[in-house]
Amino acid sequence: MDHNLRFCLEIMDAASSRSRDPPPNRCLLWRSDHHQGGPPGPPPGRTTRTTTRMSGGKLEECRQHVRSQLDNVVNFWLKHSHDNVHGGFFTCIGREGQVYDELKYVWLQGRQVWMYCRLYRTVDRFRRPEILQAATAGGAFLRKFARVSSSSGRWKCAFCLTRDGKAVKVQRSIFSECFYVLALDELSRVTGDQDMQLEAEQMMQQLVHWVRVDPSGLGRPQLPGDVPTSSMAVPMMLLCLVQQLSEGRDGGGGVQSYRELGRWCVQQIVQHVQRDGSAVLENVSVDGGELPGCLGRLQNPGHALEAGWFLLQYGAQWGDEDLQTTAINKFVELPYERGWDEEHGGLFYFLDVDGFCPTQLEWSMKLWWPHCEALIALLMAYRHSRRSELLQRFFQVYEYTFSHFPDAQSGEWFGYLTQEGKVALDFKGGPFKGFFHVPRCLYMCERILDDLLTNKT
Amino acid sequence: MDHNLRFCLEIMDAASSRSRDPPPNRCLLWRSDHHQGGPPGPPPGRTTRTTTRMSGGKLEECRQHVRSQLDNVVNFWLKHSHDNVHGGFFTCIGREGQVYDELKYVWLQGRQVWMYCRLYRTVDRFRRPEILQAATAGGAFLRKFARVSSSSGRWKCAFCLTRDGKAVKVQRSIFSECFYVLALDELSRVTGDQDMQLEAEQMMQQLVHWVRVDPSGLGRPQLPGDVPTSSMAVPMMLLCLVQQLSEGRDGGGGVQSYRELGRWCVQQIVQHVQRDGSAVLENVSVDGGELPGCLGRLQNPGHALEAGWFLLQYGAQWGDEDLQTTAINKFVELPYERGWDEEHGGLFYFLDVDGFCPTQLEWSMKLWWPHCEALIALLMAYRHSRRSELLQRFFQVYEYTFSHFPDAQSGEWFGYLTQEGKVALDFKGGPFKGFFHVPRCLYMCERILDDLLTNKT
Repeated sequence: MDHNLRFCLEIMDAASSRSRDPPPNRCLLWRSDHHQGGPPGPPPGRTTRTTTRMSGGKLEECRQHVRSQLDNVVNFWLKHSHDNVHGGFFTCIGREGQVYDELKYVWLQGRQVWMYCRLYRTVDRFRRPEILQAATAGGAFLRKFARVSSSSGRWKCAFCLTRDGKAVKVQRSIFSECFYVLALDELSRVTGDQDMQLEAEQMMQQLVHWVRVDPSGLGRPQLPGDVPTSSMAVPMMLLCLVQQLSEGRDGGGGVQSYRELGRWCVQQIVQHVQRDGSAVLENVSVDGGELPGCLGRLQNPGHALEAGWFLLQYGAQWGDEDLQTTAINKFVELPYERGWDEEHGGLFYFLDVDGFCPTQLEWSMKLWWPHCEALIALLMAYRHSRRSELLQRFFQVYEYTFSHFPDAQSGEWFGYLTQEGKVALDFKGGPFKGFFHVPRCLYMCERILDDLLTNKT
Repeated sequence: MDHNLRFCLEIMDAASSRSRDPPPNRCLLWRSDHHQGGPPGPPPGRTTRTTTRMSGGKLEECRQHVRSQLDNVVNFWLKHSHDNVHGGFFTCIGREGQVYDELKYVWLQGRQVWMYCRLYRTVDRFRRPEILQAATAGGAFLRKFARVSSSSGRWKCAFCLTRDGKAVKVQRSIFSECFYVLALDELSRVTGDQDMQLEAEQMMQQLVHWVRVDPSGLGRPQLPGDVPTSSMAVPMMLLCLVQQLSEGRDGGGGVQSYRELGRWCVQQIVQHVQRDGSAVLENVSVDGGELPGCLGRLQNPGHALEAGWFLLQYGAQWGDEDLQTTAINKFVELPYERGWDEEHGGLFYFLDVDGFCPTQLEWSMKLWWPHCEALIALLMAYRHSRRSELLQRFFQVYEYTFSHFPDAQSGEWFGYLTQEGKVALDFKGGPFKGFFHVPRCLYMCERILDDLLTNKT
């Protein structure tokens, strides 16, 4: 019996012996209608002996299921999101695939280009002409329309565009530009277009300038009460870009500067661990102190979990064992423990570290993306540490996720549930939900599961 | 038997004979623990005969209850919100009155000054020194700190301030400035400070300039895809200010210009009635056409109801019977019918006129303020028309409101419920909830009920 499966047995036995109440959600891993082939499993609530027998194939079952979900999600977006008239992607897609708004959100345009290219480049079954063609068309739309000419400089991108590419709104942050870089670099890797790669690099230089030298080009007014804040999103996003831009490129001055930038991002992220190591706070002062009020007390468990797997990847790349330990202890286990809703299951969106009610109206809702990030983070943390409780937690999030978010009727996932797990908004794509977190999660999990099932240690 | 009470009987009889299901919420009007004096009523579900007997005192019961609620809410804010060190008001007040964030939101500073002054000036039992003193201190804080010096001109106000008055954030809209005008004009009426009144008038001129002549001072970039939009909030807010600034001032050029501005605001508001008169849409094009996408299809029933009672007041002031009829049919009845949640009770926050899922995560939540606006609008519409169904709807909203929002334990009202009516956020004050909608609603309802019970026609 291999190492993984032995852990599975131990986990399931431990879980069974600790169980006090019946599970709140249907235990999807034993439901036959989610299997692709293989014998149907018994219903939940059977004896430990039966559970133990079935858990032998659990990781393989996960892999099969994740793989079929990824195919489903890719097909949904291939079918419903392409604008064959003006190029680019519709991002407001209703439950059954209808376009309910023609606005094109730039974050989501960039993310979709990146995701298509990444799948095309690294997964054999997605190396299909229509995926490359869609990514290329999306990249052309972005390059033609996303950058706005304004007093903010020639690199600022719009936040959203009309169907035919006119800028509707510009944010005073860096994220449209970040996803522009992500898209262009990945697309250039597929097409070999060096001009495109150069443009991504130049945009990256502008981003670093805004973040580390002078933010005035972003257009935010300087106000005396607006204390400079280090929001975790910024170094996370830059670290993601550092890994994107330096992947497989070992030499040159650019890569050296990315190495320094990567270290800076890691240091910036890690200083969000506060309260004697007991919490990850979303916003801290620029010198790593706690900020006053709601802003300073805010926790975003999904975001911390996402940072966790970014740090794990970075630590693995550079052989930094300490960083990987920090990532697991502080950015995977801690936000999971803080963020998990013991009453209804699922991860809260926002929490206040002192237990005040957050002021975000959606704080208690269950969103798809924190669950996506948790699945990647827990499985990656398990792969590194082989600690059984991490796999147990992965299975807990897995069951919640797959019994709540996927839409068995029309495909893809719902994005927004109430605290109790009821679908609150039924669209598949909206201003912040596109072809990104779900497929990235399924893609990453499939790869890690491949790895776990191949390299049984 | 007077006219009102006869209507009550008819309503209750009609409601009883139509009743199919038990009411989803406890019928508060018959619950003894909400009464102040008077015999306890029977529990819900008794016979029509008993109901008929009890409904005789219904409007009087409402008045008593609304009056005691207003006292409760005023006392809560007098006790918990005053900053005796730096002046102004804390606006982030937790469930039991604790300050959970020291930021001071300018909308809420202005609203609280206005509300204190209005109560002081027009309600005998609130003509108390501590209320005047708090309003004066709040006005001084606003005048000292709210206006920010910036490239946007010398009239732009901050959106929020630190406890000691430093600007933290500036919005690119007109609403901080609107509440500044509201506060200063009302305060000047109480104190007789003509400089203050002049400052309010000058700020009003700036507002009108931004709205009707040149919005560039607000700092929004001009973007080719950003179609000029008429948002209902703008003419509503200006109409409110027109009524504030011209109240009791009959002559002079200023009042004439307000009359013209008032007519413009009414015309702008009324053009939000769309779809052959079947819906009020929150955003339309500047020439009164429907806009594409989610923006164009958005309905905000609470906002439409608030516009309804603004229009009713304005129509009554100028003897415009047609406008009052439009107000009742299109801005009171229509949004009530569209916005009421037949399944769980209460008014939705946002809806899409074509039935798509709104993209606002909080669309299905039940917020305090649409219920406040509905109570005023329905009672005012009933006072004008004496149509029994309007009073019946008032009672329906009244029962939902008072059985869900007030916090019997710690005073004041919860602001944010789930669709099902569970408290989702438990603070009493936050970035958008202060001492305004609840006391204004209770104050307006008390006055209208006084009027109905005094002038029995």
